[in-house]
Amino acid sequence: MSRVLLASRNAKKLGELRRILAAEGLDGAEGLEVVGLDDVPEFPEAPETGATFEENAVAKARDAVAATGLPAVADDSGLAVDALNGMPGVLSARWAGRHGDDQANLDLVLAQLTDTPEERRGAAFVCAAALVRPGGRETVVRGEWRGALIRKPRGTNGFGYDPIFVPEGETRTSAELAPEEKDAASHRGRALRALLPALRELV
Amino acid sequence: MSRVLLASRNAKKLGELRRILAAEGLDGAEGLEVVGLDDVPEFPEAPETGATFEENAVAKARDAVAATGLPAVADDSGLAVDALNGMPGVLSARWAGRHGDDQANLDLVLAQLTDTPEERRGAAFVCAAALVRPGGRETVVRGEWRGALIRKPRGTNGFGYDPIFVPEGETRTSAELAPEEKDAASHRGRALRALLPALRELV
Repeated sequence: MSRVLLASRNAKKLGELRRILAAEGLDGAEGLEVVGLDDVPEFPEAPETGATFEENAVAKARDAVAATGLPAVADDSGLAVDALNGMPGVLSARWAGRHGDDQANLDLVLAQLTDTPEERRGAAFVCAAALVRPGGRETVVRGEWRGALIRKPRGTNGFGYDPIFVPEGETRTSAELAPEEKDAASHRGRALRALLPALRELV
Repeated sequence: MSRVLLASRNAKKLGELRRILAAEGLDGAEGLEVVGLDDVPEFPEAPETGATFEENAVAKARDAVAATGLPAVADDSGLAVDALNGMPGVLSARWAGRHGDDQANLDLVLAQLTDTPEERRGAAFVCAAALVRPGGRETVVRGEWRGALIRKPRGTNGFGYDPIFVPEGETRTSAELAPEEKDAASHRGRALRALLPALRELV
């Protein structure tokens, strides 16, 4: 059984990654075992200083490969708000200044968009996913999910900016979608599915 | 004596605008009297919802002309940070969510750039200045001032993001420059001087 490492310490993101791969029958069934960072010895992780999602995803996967010798998948994702010129972008998880404070980040985006009218509240969730193999071959893909930002959070599923993001064609926020509905449409779902051919080559 | 209205309620910005015009001999000496909003009856001002500095400057000047019948100059300005895709931009005065809290805005930009290395800390102060005449003729110009953002505020002159902005060719922040040094180089000085030919036509 080949192994591939999912290089994320974000429990909710890791849950989504595992769920998406499992839905494709890629955990165990196809001769590929998906392991998490909890299953390998701790290693130092570089801060995310890249200017793009792709740079950060590749850097995280490279660090994991260097430390474990396993092929590694990493993602970097965030919200690109039109009225903020595509920001918070790579700073999505630390937009309010501290890393991982979802509520503060979401509140800040809402406050910054207070005077932004409905027709300019477009946004996209973006996910870059990278597979790096021992030996150095790298595959990077991108998934995007367009939508608009509402003014009051709704829903409790998902994480991050999900409660203020209404995907195109939807009336519910992505925090009001069932997990499998989110996965079928989301930036992360799209990116990981784009990575499947490369993952299947590992078997 | 012709009159021109400086349409700003920001006392520090108004001081700079008056100082720059006075340095060009344009207040009184050339047959042009510069009046402030305190010298005219109060009128309702639309919120700054434009996507660009130019839109906001023109909108403010138009409102002032409509309310007073005087030719009016307005500016909209802000800090465009490279690593934030040009933001805070038009949201510079309300970046942390409340309008006009200079300290909170500056602290937030510094926090957002914590992991941004020196070579990616470029920024520009940008100022759009508009002259709108009764009858509707409009002139809009732009001034830019390139520099880089440091990690700890220095200096007490100026306002807004001045304490973290080191202009190109300088070692001091723009809050450490003497007022006349700032005016000679600044985005606002450049924009207003670009507006002088149009202002002189008013006489």
